[in-house]
Amino acid sequence: MIKICAIGAGRAGLVHVRNFVESVPQAKLVAVVDANREAADKAARDYKIERVYADYRQALAEGGFDGVVITTPTFTHAEIAIAAAKAGVHVLCEKPMALSLEECDQMIAAAQASRVVFQLGFMRRFDSAFRNAKQRILAGEIGKVMLVKSTGRGPGLPPRWACDIKKSNGMLAEVNSHDFDSVRWLSGSEYRRVYAEADAFKCSDLKLEFPDFYDNALVSCRMHSGALAVIDGACPADYGYDARVEILGSEGVMLIGELPHEAVSVCKKGTGIVRSTFPSWRDRFRQGYVEEDRHFVNCIQEGKPPEVTAQDGKLALQAVIAANRSIVEGRPIEIPSPD
Amino acid sequence: MIKICAIGAGRAGLVHVRNFVESVPQAKLVAVVDANREAADKAARDYKIERVYADYRQALAEGGFDGVVITTPTFTHAEIAIAAAKAGVHVLCEKPMALSLEECDQMIAAAQASRVVFQLGFMRRFDSAFRNAKQRILAGEIGKVMLVKSTGRGPGLPPRWACDIKKSNGMLAEVNSHDFDSVRWLSGSEYRRVYAEADAFKCSDLKLEFPDFYDNALVSCRMHSGALAVIDGACPADYGYDARVEILGSEGVMLIGELPHEAVSVCKKGTGIVRSTFPSWRDRFRQGYVEEDRHFVNCIQEGKPPEVTAQDGKLALQAVIAANRSIVEGRPIEIPSPD
Amino acid sequence: MIKICAIGAGRAGLVHVRNFVESVPQAKLVAVVDANREAADKAARDYKIERVYADYRQALAEGGFDGVVITTPTFTHAEIAIAAAKAGVHVLCEKPMALSLEECDQMIAAAQASRVVFQLGFMRRFDSAFRNAKQRILAGEIGKVMLVKSTGRGPGLPPRWACDIKKSNGMLAEVNSHDFDSVRWLSGSEYRRVYAEADAFKCSDLKLEFPDFYDNALVSCRMHSGALAVIDGACPADYGYDARVEILGSEGVMLIGELPHEAVSVCKKGTGIVRSTFPSWRDRFRQGYVEEDRHFVNCIQEGKPPEVTAQDGKLALQAVIAANRSIVEGRPIEIPSPD
Amino acid sequence: MIKICAIGAGRAGLVHVRNFVESVPQAKLVAVVDANREAADKAARDYKIERVYADYRQALAEGGFDGVVITTPTFTHAEIAIAAAKAGVHVLCEKPMALSLEECDQMIAAAQASRVVFQLGFMRRFDSAFRNAKQRILAGEIGKVMLVKSTGRGPGLPPRWACDIKKSNGMLAEVNSHDFDSVRWLSGSEYRRVYAEADAFKCSDLKLEFPDFYDNALVSCRMHSGALAVIDGACPADYGYDARVEILGSEGVMLIGELPHEAVSVCKKGTGIVRSTFPSWRDRFRQGYVEEDRHFVNCIQEGKPPEVTAQDGKLALQAVIAANRSIVEGRPIEIPSPD
Repeated sequence: MIKICAIGAGRAGLVHVRNFVESVPQAKLVAVVDANREAADKAARDYKIERVYADYRQALAEGGFDGVVITTPTFTHAEIAIAAAKAGVHVLCEKPMALSLEECDQMIAAAQASRVVFQLGFMRRFDSAFRNAKQRILAGEIGKVMLVKSTGRGPGLPPRWACDIKKSNGMLAEVNSHDFDSVRWLSGSEYRRVYAEADAFKCSDLKLEFPDFYDNALVSCRMHSGALAVIDGACPADYGYDARVEILGSEGVMLIGELPHEAVSVCKKGTGIVRSTFPSWRDRFRQGYVEEDRHFVNCIQEGKPPEVTAQDGKLALQAVIAANRSIVEGRPIEIPSPD
Repeated sequence: MIKICAIGAGRAGLVHVRNFVESVPQAKLVAVVDANREAADKAARDYKIERVYADYRQALAEGGFDGVVITTPTFTHAEIAIAAAKAGVHVLCEKPMALSLEECDQMIAAAQASRVVFQLGFMRRFDSAFRNAKQRILAGEIGKVMLVKSTGRGPGLPPRWACDIKKSNGMLAEVNSHDFDSVRWLSGSEYRRVYAEADAFKCSDLKLEFPDFYDNALVSCRMHSGALAVIDGACPADYGYDARVEILGSEGVMLIGELPHEAVSVCKKGTGIVRSTFPSWRDRFRQGYVEEDRHFVNCIQEGKPPEVTAQDGKLALQAVIAANRSIVEGRPIEIPSPD
Repeated sequence: MIKICAIGAGRAGLVHVRNFVESVPQAKLVAVVDANREAADKAARDYKIERVYADYRQALAEGGFDGVVITTPTFTHAEIAIAAAKAGVHVLCEKPMALSLEECDQMIAAAQASRVVFQLGFMRRFDSAFRNAKQRILAGEIGKVMLVKSTGRGPGLPPRWACDIKKSNGMLAEVNSHDFDSVRWLSGSEYRRVYAEADAFKCSDLKLEFPDFYDNALVSCRMHSGALAVIDGACPADYGYDARVEILGSEGVMLIGELPHEAVSVCKKGTGIVRSTFPSWRDRFRQGYVEEDRHFVNCIQEGKPPEVTAQDGKLALQAVIAANRSIVEGRPIEIPSPD
Repeated sequence: MIKICAIGAGRAGLVHVRNFVESVPQAKLVAVVDANREAADKAARDYKIERVYADYRQALAEGGFDGVVITTPTFTHAEIAIAAAKAGVHVLCEKPMALSLEECDQMIAAAQASRVVFQLGFMRRFDSAFRNAKQRILAGEIGKVMLVKSTGRGPGLPPRWACDIKKSNGMLAEVNSHDFDSVRWLSGSEYRRVYAEADAFKCSDLKLEFPDFYDNALVSCRMHSGALAVIDGACPADYGYDARVEILGSEGVMLIGELPHEAVSVCKKGTGIVRSTFPSWRDRFRQGYVEEDRHFVNCIQEGKPPEVTAQDGKLALQAVIAANRSIVEGRPIEIPSPD
């Protein structure tokens, strides 16, 4: 039985908490941490978790678990992940990986030094539709990838600290990290150049306080393979959670994901035919998160490297940072080859 | 140039009037007839038709046209069609063909005696989706037809005279004639037995005056090939016009038609994803009616038999009449083999 | 912790076995039984189940569990369920409930006498789309239910013993029990009359040995509320598992379920746009089975009656039996009011 | 009766020829011109057109028509349109309008001097889905437009002369003119800045001869309203003709167009569910072309300005030219405000 400590009991944290309690039979969630002690206590009560902490350092000091799942604010990821790795504890870290490439490098080094599993939380990689698509692309079903279009829109507004682009890398990091990862993964290639346009259409008042703030962005990408890509993000998208990807290959086109959610259509006089959307990423990727958490436990059990690594986290962040720079500088930004 | 006289300037009549004026270059609409003289006058004004009549007999007496399209109430079809045929005028007759099989036989005999074209107005036969489906069934794409399910629902209520089942054969004739034809056509087989259930759910007040009245019906059919079929009709279906057919074959399933109309989806907070329906059969089968009218003119020009004949009208009516009898008698009704 | 014994380790059995092991944290699967000892052994190995039996009587005699899930062939349900109830063990029984209404009555009596939970395995009741639909119908969203159309087709052929209609009640019981339950549940009304047509189109050779055998059926139903309903079943439907329901209400129409499965479309030259179907009921109703099993455990824990009862199993079977009689007698069969 | 002369009897030319003959009752097609005399002769035979020319100048000299529809290669548009205007003949000019903004200005000046109708052939403006979408955007249904995504892919390869970007402005002009127009029209705003990436993935051999050639392009746009936009084009897209637009507004999202064509789905073992695509723009926009041609005739009859003007043609071309420059210079290109 693999023992897990959840660091973070916010929205994403509770998704993992519930999974480890209900749907990962090889794991036992033994501790929960949140700087907001009340949130940690509530999670502990709701899910009958024995140990509760407000400070992750105390949890690590007391030990008694094999892995942590880190869902705290981005600016805390590096510190926590490095501390966990140094304590010999395996790490499942939510996206975005960190704030800077330097932090990423330090996290990677710490995990390598301790030989712990370091898995990045790109749950799309465990969603059955995305996996099915990736396998079929690899099998050559649509030929050579020429264009990837990835849309990521979410109904919620990011937390206040994330409005300061300098402190958070903004929406492209907080919401569209997944798209930056999907483009790399599905094209099978790395970012060579990005050009981005962005603006604050929905929350223009936030621009007064945070002049760099944007809530809509369009990122045009060129990959090393030559493939083109475009990422569009918007937040808050009141109409629902919307994650769709289109891949144009030399032999055909592939569409992943759909706007409709529940397989129920209702049509009445004057309403037209109505389908519901996904209220949240929690609904769209429910099973993806379960499989992600099972994979983490499985990697710990079998001592094997995870399918989504710290390097994946770093390379997505690199493109995010370049896109933010492109927004500021108004020109395409070249990205050095990974080596 | 083939000259046409439109007998009937009601809803269906105007569809044909417009087609002959705007979209059938080989035809010229030279006359319009309606017992409601105002309706005839308005059609003549709107479409610049030279001759106008309140009485079809006068139009036939004056002549000067090659064909008529008959869209008057069902109970007048036989009389008009027979008179037209006797005058040597070709006939395009809207569905249902007539009120009784005897009338059908007289119409067939009159057309044969005069060697005029007699085309029945089952416009689905000219819709590209239905034609595509029929061709693929014929080509064996889904194997042997095992089951046909045909849904026909319309937003409008039939005219008052049609509420008396004895005078109109009811909704199964007025609305679902098309389904009775589709089942025959797509299964490639004739009706052997029908069993029907029906009720007045939407207009239950009409039952007081017309005890046999129904506005929902479900007809279970067995074809001579052995194939099963089911027709369901409802009227008024406030949500839109709805014509869908599903065919289960030994090698696969085929779906014809869709609920959504315009290829525009809109999704807003709280509304879900919304598509519009077809407001009317006029919208769903617009091009089908054009092709039907072109086919009629083409058959006249080339002296060839139409793809949809009086016999098709009669065999659909035969099943409608049997279904109505099944409703009354509460038992399956056998239908004699056509020979 | 609720202890469960799985009686039956066939296809349906393994679905429940896996659920109780992986996804029902309040339960522990302590024993597995299968007359085919090899199948039981394999399940025990794969899922690390401690106790294994070839004979359910031995398992019941040794006890040590709170509930059983029965997935054995239909003709064994009554005997096993009654024995379990008498042993004070809660019962989750797969559909169809039993072979005869007499068996159902005995099962109900035994469960009542022992005050055990008796839950019937209509997993659609726990599927989120079906639940969403039911709630919205109850809330009056589509008005009064006028028509329910339920399609149930499966890719697999039922086991050989089920080919003898007298011993199994045939495909309508083995495959379409779910549809018979859905019609009752969604219409909120009981069966008053059924008329059925059926034939053996796909496996006509089986008719030589089993003259009553059919692999396609169409059942026309009238409910006590007046609502119409139609159930169509086919097996094997090579193209995939297909469970769709359409409900026409006085205020609108509702569609539950869809043919496509994975949210991946691929379009290439000459292929058209291609979506995959559900390979099996296991894929379509994966989460429904999980919720069903969780509900069973929850009812045991809280001593509350299940949402799907033995009575539901009996009333579905009653309509199945009437439909089979209608096929033989060629006439509608009236069903007495439940009271 | 408005008399029309068709200048150009190629693929697009024949679409208009057929429309004017079959579906525009107020018009009569009296002449056809094509430098390829055989093509002109064939069109004349097939559609019974009285006058045939190889040289448009001769047709104009002889006169006898009110308007021309110009579907010749782009580099001939300006010369022909100006000559027609000078002859007092109304002009319906296919896209792209011309090769340079200077040509556009001369065409506009000529039309204004002669007070003839000058309509640009952006048929999407007459498609019912696009019109419905535009009206709903104008009505505020999705709030303020934040992002427009327009996809235009065609199965055919442009003609050889169009492979030289300098002579044709390339695929962005020949194929994606429509997208450049749609973005303007649907956003209700003009181009401020474009950034483009492009490559030759499908026909890389053509790069040997035409170094600037590309067959895939991605154009990122910023509009004067602030709205973002992205256009992606690919050619040849073997899988079918694909024109879809997505508009994200502050209050919701709107999708125009769909990949599937005929409303027939077929699902067989091993094939999945299959829908067909649009083989060509001729199929997708059949009715749009008819309405476009009717509109042209109507504008001539009523002396009113067309809904799609030469200015629309010029402003689309301006963005195309800027995008081509961006590809070459590797930087975003600012577009001066229209005044």
